[in-house]
This record gives sequence, structure tokens and C-alpha cells, in this order.
Amino acid sequence: MREGIEENPMKSSRSNTKAVFLCGGRGKRMFPIAEDKFLLDFLGKPLLEHQTEVASQAGLSHFVMVGNPENITKIKQITKRIAGIEVDFALQRRSLGIADALKSAEPLLRGQLLVINPNDVFSSSAYTKIIAAAKKTPASSYILGYQVQKYFPGGYLQVNSRNELLHIVEKPSPGEEPSNLVNILIHCHSNSKELLRYIEAVQTTRDDVYECALDNMVKAGHKIKVVPYNGFWAPIKYPWHIFKVMEYFLDKVQPCIASSARISEKATIEGKVVLSENVRVLENAVIRGPVYIGANSIVGNNALVRDYSHIGANSVIGYSTEVKHSYIGDNCWFHSNYVGDSIIDDNSSLGAGTVLANFRLDEGDIQIKVGDNMVDTGYDKLGAIVGRGCRIGVNASLMPGVRVGSDSVVGPQVCLHHDLGANKMVLGASRYQVTDNKTSLDEGKRRELLDKLRG
Amino acid sequence: MREGIEENPMKSSRSNTKAVFLCGGRGKRMFPIAEDKFLLDFLGKPLLEHQTEVASQAGLSHFVMVGNPENITKIKQITKRIAGIEVDFALQRRSLGIADALKSAEPLLRGQLLVINPNDVFSSSAYTKIIAAAKKTPASSYILGYQVQKYFPGGYLQVNSRNELLHIVEKPSPGEEPSNLVNILIHCHSNSKELLRYIEAVQTTRDDVYECALDNMVKAGHKIKVVPYNGFWAPIKYPWHIFKVMEYFLDKVQPCIASSARISEKATIEGKVVLSENVRVLENAVIRGPVYIGANSIVGNNALVRDYSHIGANSVIGYSTEVKHSYIGDNCWFHSNYVGDSIIDDNSSLGAGTVLANFRLDEGDIQIKVGDNMVDTGYDKLGAIVGRGCRIGVNASLMPGVRVGSDSVVGPQVCLHHDLGANKMVLGASRYQVTDNKTSLDEGKRRELLDKLRG
Amino acid sequence: MREGIEENPMKSSRSNTKAVFLCGGRGKRMFPIAEDKFLLDFLGKPLLEHQTEVASQAGLSHFVMVGNPENITKIKQITKRIAGIEVDFALQRRSLGIADALKSAEPLLRGQLLVINPNDVFSSSAYTKIIAAAKKTPASSYILGYQVQKYFPGGYLQVNSRNELLHIVEKPSPGEEPSNLVNILIHCHSNSKELLRYIEAVQTTRDDVYECALDNMVKAGHKIKVVPYNGFWAPIKYPWHIFKVMEYFLDKVQPCIASSARISEKATIEGKVVLSENVRVLENAVIRGPVYIGANSIVGNNALVRDYSHIGANSVIGYSTEVKHSYIGDNCWFHSNYVGDSIIDDNSSLGAGTVLANFRLDEGDIQIKVGDNMVDTGYDKLGAIVGRGCRIGVNASLMPGVRVGSDSVVGPQVCLHHDLGANKMVLGASRYQVTDNKTSLDEGKRRELLDKLRG
Repeated sequence: MREGIEENPMKSSRSNTKAVFLCGGRGKRMFPIAEDKFLLDFLGKPLLEHQTEVASQAGLSHFVMVGNPENITKIKQITKRIAGIEVDFALQRRSLGIADALKSAEPLLRGQLLVINPNDVFSSSAYTKIIAAAKKTPASSYILGYQVQKYFPGGYLQVNSRNELLHIVEKPSPGEEPSNLVNILIHCHSNSKELLRYIEAVQTTRDDVYECALDNMVKAGHKIKVVPYNGFWAPIKYPWHIFKVMEYFLDKVQPCIASSARISEKATIEGKVVLSENVRVLENAVIRGPVYIGANSIVGNNALVRDYSHIGANSVIGYSTEVKHSYIGDNCWFHSNYVGDSIIDDNSSLGAGTVLANFRLDEGDIQIKVGDNMVDTGYDKLGAIVGRGCRIGVNASLMPGVRVGSDSVVGPQVCLHHDLGANKMVLGASRYQVTDNKTSLDEGKRRELLDKLRG
Repeated sequence: MREGIEENPMKSSRSNTKAVFLCGGRGKRMFPIAEDKFLLDFLGKPLLEHQTEVASQAGLSHFVMVGNPENITKIKQITKRIAGIEVDFALQRRSLGIADALKSAEPLLRGQLLVINPNDVFSSSAYTKIIAAAKKTPASSYILGYQVQKYFPGGYLQVNSRNELLHIVEKPSPGEEPSNLVNILIHCHSNSKELLRYIEAVQTTRDDVYECALDNMVKAGHKIKVVPYNGFWAPIKYPWHIFKVMEYFLDKVQPCIASSARISEKATIEGKVVLSENVRVLENAVIRGPVYIGANSIVGNNALVRDYSHIGANSVIGYSTEVKHSYIGDNCWFHSNYVGDSIIDDNSSLGAGTVLANFRLDEGDIQIKVGDNMVDTGYDKLGAIVGRGCRIGVNASLMPGVRVGSDSVVGPQVCLHHDLGANKMVLGASRYQVTDNKTSLDEGKRRELLDKLRG
Repeated sequence: MREGIEENPMKSSRSNTKAVFLCGGRGKRMFPIAEDKFLLDFLGKPLLEHQTEVASQAGLSHFVMVGNPENITKIKQITKRIAGIEVDFALQRRSLGIADALKSAEPLLRGQLLVINPNDVFSSSAYTKIIAAAKKTPASSYILGYQVQKYFPGGYLQVNSRNELLHIVEKPSPGEEPSNLVNILIHCHSNSKELLRYIEAVQTTRDDVYECALDNMVKAGHKIKVVPYNGFWAPIKYPWHIFKVMEYFLDKVQPCIASSARISEKATIEGKVVLSENVRVLENAVIRGPVYIGANSIVGNNALVRDYSHIGANSVIGYSTEVKHSYIGDNCWFHSNYVGDSIIDDNSSLGAGTVLANFRLDEGDIQIKVGDNMVDTGYDKLGAIVGRGCRIGVNASLMPGVRVGSDSVVGPQVCLHHDLGANKMVLGASRYQVTDNKTSLDEGKRRELLDKLRG
């Protein structure tokens, strides 16, 4: 067997279709979230585990996970604990696109193939639809076509009247879309070997080998059926896309309070709330769902967690902290903060009084610089995006949409307007003048004020 | 009929005295509160509406409202919705004082006249006293004389032993007052036409034509009776005078919770509190009266509103915000703020963590610059005075007595020591240094701290 | 009788041993805590009162208080109100060490003597042990030897196998200690006059006259018995040593709520808590013991006081303030603050939003500069140490371990990294730019947000 290939010797009797999860790519637009997107936790489990379970529930039982040298161990740990499936592993050494990923897994690919991008989140109907189409209509391949309501910057599927693919148009300008069907990566190929042959034959220096292969298949007379889909679909390309996925999981989850959770009688739990094992909720805290709180986390006195918030394990939402519509990792510590519409990765902390501002003073949409371009996030409420292992000092202010790279430090009282790279430290140029104190106080005033306050 | 004059054709049978409200002036010392003072809302109604109702309850039913081109429409809207009174309107084109205002309304003035400054707040006994005096003692005119306990910088009434006016002394120095009676503008004139003749005859280039006319009447042998008054009187000349009027209305109002108000069982409502229609009070909020909250406003989790505070409609006193002895307009948004002894006009918002400081570090009285003079407000606790349409960023600090002009923006973390004009933007010169982060953390410490916190 | 000597004419029949409290020294390392350490209040009483009572309970009834001109009046006030003891007073004019203090009290010293440093806190067993030893074993002197578990920078007692003193080794390097017994100042001398003769005979220019006298006694054949002690011992040399003493008293005290205390039904009192006369606890406050709150103090709405905190009288822990493991004096005012692991002397106040940071961003131990040396406090959580009569403005940040001298002012929004002397004022160099406001708002957005918030 080729290096990097691990084939599961045990073979099940369920569907023979192999689901190939392409986990080997590296997201460049996710800064400062360093983790692979499919490794992000939702409801206490990595996204990949959710994805695999959904596919399994749709009847798939043979999986090929294509990972890279950095993530393959985690992928194995995650998928090996899912019952009832067989998983093979392939190692993609370079991040060179779909075709390269499939070539990495070549020895494992036989018969019918389902190629899946595990960074996009679908409902299980995406799988059942394409599997049903593959059973019903004979074709070389089947492509899921997401029916968009408004322009989306993706690849559009030009089809004939029988919904057969004619051509894939990459990112047409708005108004020039050939259809309302966006190409999303749940592709079914009836014959793996045939697909791989087309891939091998492509001559290009770009990273669209796979798409060229599909185009060449069409040109050679292969029928590629487009299966329309209008269920849930949320790609994670930029960090703020995490919000939609978080909302999706919070909408799906059943409310549940672990029996080991300790909740003060003076706390308020309202709406759909999940409190995991050993969570503690202190006096006068308010959790207004949909909200998920991971194991061992503490929601402190007077804290307010609300409006679609997702908090990892071992985190402390400390005294007098508000968390609103935010995704918080494991082992994060907050303390008298406002955290609104923000994403904070694992092991990060905020000093007392620090505010993650989420609304521009001109109330406009928040733009974020990616490479040389400003990308409109589409959000007029967006806080900070903070990588893992960051520490923010007391009374600091992070402006809407600011990103802080992992393992960085923001000093006390810094008002951070710009993104900060990974492993940086930013300190305010503290300027103050010391003089002699020439004021003096009327000693009676305090007593008077206290008497007034005591009523 | 002359331009600007609108006479009500329907005539009632009640008192024939015409109450003339002088609404045409323009306050120059009220910056940054742009609104005419009599248009400020108290208990959900403009001050003018309160004033007119009080006069109506004292038996007056004929009103002449003298407005200016900017406010006449609002004046009409307000007075036309008061039942049981007849109102005529006159337009004063220039802000040239009492005499000019009366001349503007000349065609409407017949018989007995009550000239009233609607920016001063009185109890209804002011009206009944002067009306009773006019019935009992025959005289050309009757002037309400406020019995001051200590020096007040106003016009003093020099009288004889029968309380008949000898002379009006404008702003005498302290100790040189001719009496303890201050001239306040509830003046009754038995013969409008005679008054207007005296006004016409005055030769002066100053704006004290009306006062000269009264002096001339006295000199010509007319009897002007001074009616002593020691009930409530609160002039609004400077913004902080709003506090006394606010306190007056809060003292008078009956506590009332609208049936449409939704109050958390965990909230505390104590003392005399008015909650208007659709108000929401969230968990652990405390409202300690006297307090008025306008329609649709929200008092958020853990918020504290106390000690004579008056909040307009559609405002949000957000999470963990304290409002103490403050006058807040409509549609204001606060969020984790301290708002003490402050005045905030409509449509203004404060970012999370922003503090309106209300106590000097030397604990002295707060002075405010008006023109070239420093005016002692008489308050040792005074916060900010913010015009309408302002937005203050997060973690900002406004120093005691600072005024922010309407439609201005104060940036995040600005520590504002000086007044800001209208339509300005102030941004902090953010200075910080970015270096490589050379610190590293002991990973076990967090776990240890969490265990300790969990107890 | 010599000047400065006041002998009590009434003599009791209890133990004839005289307990000499050395109160005349002046601590140089306690900056910014100006008060003599033994005058610091714990549980509503000065430490000296506690110390005297403990000695009295151990059977001592004759006391000699050696004070200095600044503190002798206070010492008299405190000790005179303790029942059942006789106290004489001596005045030590210069701060020249133990021998000098004893010489100041010479006329009062007769028979057996117990020399005590009242700035060290012991349990009563320290007294009973040394008294018992003095009764049981004949010797010239008896010295309490604290059995250390790890290196402590003090004087070590070199002893023979019968625990008789051979030599006192001042601050040996770690690893070079002659024993595990540290010399602590509860020394019993059978013959006062003899001791004073040895003191008189010492020839040295240093301040170790007393220690030389002991060494000379040993050399001359006097037996000095070392009495091992492993009970509670807490010296107060640096301000942060106050924490250990505070914890000791909080551990010893019985929980008690004064009947005059007024506690909201919505407040939470948990664990061992002492609320003194007239304390008020407002709605949603949480006090999680061990905590002591002095008379007339107010714990405001939503305040949290926890984890070994000690608050003096007439103080206000205002709205939304957290006090954690801190020692707070009388008449202090806090307001929406975080006060963690801090020491605040009497009459000091913090503006709203001010944070006393207690944890370094590199999570290391807090070091403090004393003279030219950095002293490791041994704490990784240490806040500010603030002298009496200080005022800190709003939204300021004090870095971990910062010390502020008495009667100083820290301006609003200052981020204080360095110590501040007494009677100083520090103001931030506020820099901001004012321009015209060129933004404009969508008026409908607020309404939309309000509707969304109202749900």
C-alpha cells in the first residue's frame, strides 16, 4: 500500500458508495482562526464529527478522509470514535486542490464516490437527495446545485432543460449568472476510476484541475446531472461565517441541562439552553437561549449570555460580563466585559472592563481587509475576532471587526483599531504628567454623601 | 387679519382674561439642548402642555400662543389637543423681547391680559393668586413677586407699604436688593390696549421696552399691584435647571405601572415609579423612584435607575447601566454605562463602558463656561449634558459638566475634558507600539485557577 | 518619674511578668500604608487591641507600651479601654531598635519581662508556651523559635541539643541556616535589670544592640532557652503581608449579622460573613465569605464581595463593584470597579469603571521595588496598594502591584504603571482631534434594533 494510505480491512454490507471528505486544504482567509474549520467545535463536538454523523445517518458507511500532515492525527481520533462506519485515511502532502486530494486517495477509490467538502455545512437532505438522484437517474456524475435567492460569489452551474451540466462558470459578475444554481461540493461520481482518468488528463497550471475534468467529461458526452438543493447550506470561508453555522446548530439542538450542572436558584435560564456537565451558573446570572455552554464552564454573578451564543468547555464568563451572539472557545476567561458578535478562540482572556465594540459609530457594515481587498462582512454588528492563546489587558477596547492573531497580547487600555498579527504584543504609549497635588478636600462631604445614600 | 395671526372663531363663556404665552424667544444659554425649553417633555408631555393645563385648571380658557417660525407648528399641535380651551396664535418673527412679542399678538389682545413666560414652571396657585388679586383689588396691572429666601440674580420689585410697584431694579448686586420680591413673568394687565399704548411710546435701543413701559405706567400714576408668591417656581435658563423641573414633576406624579408594561419577577420596583405603555424591565433590574420611564423603553438586566430620573420613550437602559438623577430623552441607548446627574437629549447613545463622571476629583462645584463667563452651576454632582443625535464610543469618559453639541461623535476611549460643538467628531490620538510577544504562559495555571474558582 | 514614663499606680494580683510591647519603631517598607501596622484595624479593632487581648487571655495582666511621640496617644486610647489589665507607657523618642526601646522604658522594668513585637501576629499559644517554659525550666531568658518549613529571610537560632541558644545568625543565605528555628520577638527575660546591664555594656554602632546583648549573655554562661513554636505567625513587614493577617482573623471570626444591618431579600449572604452595625446590603448583591464588613458600610446593587475580603466602616462598595480578596479601609467609595487582591487605606475612592488589575499579562509573580531592590511578593495575583485619602478618577487602570502614596490623585483614564508618591497628582496627556462630523445615520435603524431587542 502506498505511503499515507490506510485502508480499513473490515468491510460493511451497507451502501457501497465511498464518501470522500476533503480535509487536506488549508484556509487562507480564516485568519486569525488557526484551526481547520472542520475541527471547530459545535455543541461539544468537532464539526467533522457532526458532518460524518449526518452522512452516516443518510446511509453512508464507507468514508475516506483525506487529511494533511498537520491534521491527520486529529481526524483519525475524531472519526475512529464514531460507531458503525468504516474509515480509510489518505494523506495529501500539498494543498493543491480537489484533484490533488483525490489523487492522494487514489488507491482507496473504487466504484461510486461522493466527494464532500467538510467545511461546508449541509442538512442531511443534501446527502439523501444526491443519493436518491444517483439511484433514480443513470448518469456519470451528480452535482448538488444550491438554489440561491440572491447573488453569491461562487461557481455557477450552466445546465440544460433536463438539469444536465453544460459548463461551470467561476464567479460570474452579478447579473451574469447562467442560472440560480451554485456548485457546492457534494458531488457523486459513478465511476471513480473514470473520474481519475479525466483528472490525470487535464493540462493546466491553475488549481481548477477537477473542474476542468468535469468540463471535459461533459464535452466527451458524459451526463452530469445537477441535483437542485435549497436546504441549509453554510460555507465557512471567513471567520464570521462561523456565526451562521453556530446558529444552525443552536437551532437544531434540544435544550438540556446536565444533571451535574449546578445552577443558583437566583439565576435565570430562559429559552433553549444547553448546559453541559459540571457547568456552574452563579447568582443573578441570566442565560437567554439559544445558548450552548460547554463542560466545566462557569457563568459568573450577574453575567448575561444571550442571543445565540456558544461557549466552549472550561471557560469563565466572569462577573458582570455580557456575551451576545458570540462564539467562544474552550478555556477562555472573561471578567466584566462586553463581548458582542465576536469570535474568540481557545485559551484567550480579557481583562476587566475590556469591551469588544460591535457597532460602528457611523452604524455602517463592518468591512475586513483580506489581502489587499476590503471584504464586506454583511454584518452591521460585528465585534472582534481573536485567535487562540491571546491575552487582552484591562479596560482595552477592540474596534468592530478587529482581528487579533493567536498568542498575541493587547496591553491595558489599548484602543485597537487595526488587526494584529500572531505572536505580537501591543502596548499603549502611556503618557501622563505627575505634579504635586494642590487640591484639598472638605472632610465633611463624604459623611454627608454617605448619610444621603443611606437614606 | 394680519399675517401670522390666527384667531379662534369660537368664544367660550368662561373667564374673559386672555393668557398670552410668550413662546417666541430663543434661549442662548441652553446649549447643547437645542429644543425650546417649553417643548421639553416631562412625564410624556411637552412642558407647554403641562403649563397650559395648569392655567386651564386655574380657570383660564382663552390663550394666545406667540411663537416663532420654527416652533409655531409644534405649538399648534400641542395646544390643539388640549380639551376645553380656545387658542389663538401669533407669530413673532424676531426674538426681541416681551414688548415685541405682545406687539406681534396685538390684534388678538383685548380686555384683561395675563402675560406668561412658559419657560418658567409654577404651581397653579401662581395663577389663582394673581387672578384673585385682580378680582379683589382694582389696579392697572398685577405682577407676581416671588419671595426669595436668598439672593437670586433677577429683577427685583421695589414696592411701597401697600405692595404697589415703585420700580423694577434689574439684577442688583447681592445686598442691594430693594425687597425680597423677584419679578416673575405672570403679569396681569386690566387693559390690553392701554399697555400696548405705553409699549409703543417707549424710546429705547435696549430690549427692556416692556419693563420701561411698566415703569412709565407707574410714573403716570397707574397702580401696579405686586402679588407675593412663595409656591414652586423654577425658571429654565441653563440646561441644569431642567433637574429642578424634573424633580418637581416626579414629586407631583402619581405612581403608575401601565398594564402593558412587562416586568420580570426578578426586577425590583421601589418607591414612586411611573412605567409607561409597553415598558419592559428585565431580570435583576432595580428602579428606585421617583423615576419616570417613557413608552416602549427597556430597562435591561441588572440596570439601576434611581434617585429622580426621567427617561423618555423608546430608550434602552441596557445591561449593567446605572442612571442616577438624570434626564434622558427619547430613543437613547445606553449599555454598561454610568450616567449620573446628566442630561441626554433624544437619539443619543453611549458605547459600553462609557462613564459620565459627575464628581470632580477636588469635589468642588461644577462651573460651566457660558460665553466668556464661568457660571457656577451650584451642583457638586453634575455629569455631562449631551445634545440630540450624539454617539459616544466605548470606554469613553466625559468629565463633569462637559457639554456635547447635537449630532456630534465622541470616539472610543476619548477622555473629554472640554465642550464639543454641534456636528463635530472627536477621536483619540491612539498611540501604541507593536512588538513581538516574548512572554509565554504556564499552561497549567489556568486549570489551577479554574479549579480554585470552582471551589 | 522620668519624662515619658507613666506608671500605673494600681497593681493586680495576677502574673507578675511584664509584657513590653515595642510600638515605637517606624516601618520603612510599608509604603504607601502610613499607619503603624499595629494600628491597622481588623474586625473593627486595631491590631494592638487584638494583640493585647490575646496576651491577656494567656494570663498576662501587666503591660508596658513603648510608643513614639506620634502614636502614643492612640496607643493609650486603645489599651485603656481593655478591661482587666494594667498598662504603663513609655516614650521612645528615636527609632533605634529594641535595646533603645527597652532603655526608654527602664524605670518600668522590674522582675520578669516579656518583650513583644506587636507587628507580628501569633496565636495565644505563643504566649502560653513561653510562659510555661519559663515556669518549668530555670533559665536567664526564653526565646520563641518559629519552626520554618522553608527558607525565611530572618534571624536563625543556633542551638545545642538541649535547645539552648548558642548564637543568633542574622539572615543566613538559603542552605546555610544553622537550624529551622527563626528568632521571633516573644522573648522572656527572668531578670530585667540584668538584661538592661548587658544592653548598657554593648559597644556597637549598628542597631543590633539587643542581639549583641543576648550573645554576650550566652558567652557569659547565661542559659537562654529556645522554645519551639509552630502555631500561627505572620509578621507585617510589607503591605501585602496584611493579607495573611486578614485571612487569619477572617478564619477565626464567628459569622455574625448585626440586628441593625439591613439586607435586601434579593441579596445573597453565603459562607462566613460578619456584617457590623447598620450595614446595608442592596438588591442582588452577593457576599461570599469569609468576609467582614464594618459598621455603616453599604454593599450596593449587584456588588460582589468575596474570597477573604475585609471592608472597614462607612465605606461604599457601590453598584456593580467586585471586591475579591482585598483589605479596604474606612470611608472608601467604590463604584463599578474591580478591586482584586488590593489594599486600600482609609478615605480613598475609585471613579466608575476603574480597574485595579491583579494579574500580569505574562502571569508571573508580582515584584515590587523597595529602595533599589525588587522584592518578589510571592503573589501572582496582586492588585494595587493605595494609601489613605486618595482619589482615582473614572475608567483608570492601575497595574498589578502599583502603589499610590497617601493623599494623591490619579486622573481619569490614566493607566498607571509606576508607583506614585504621597501627595501627587497624575493626569493623562489627553490627546484628541476634533473635526467636523461627516457621518450620517439611517434613522430607521434604531427603531429596527429596538423592535429586535423587544422581541
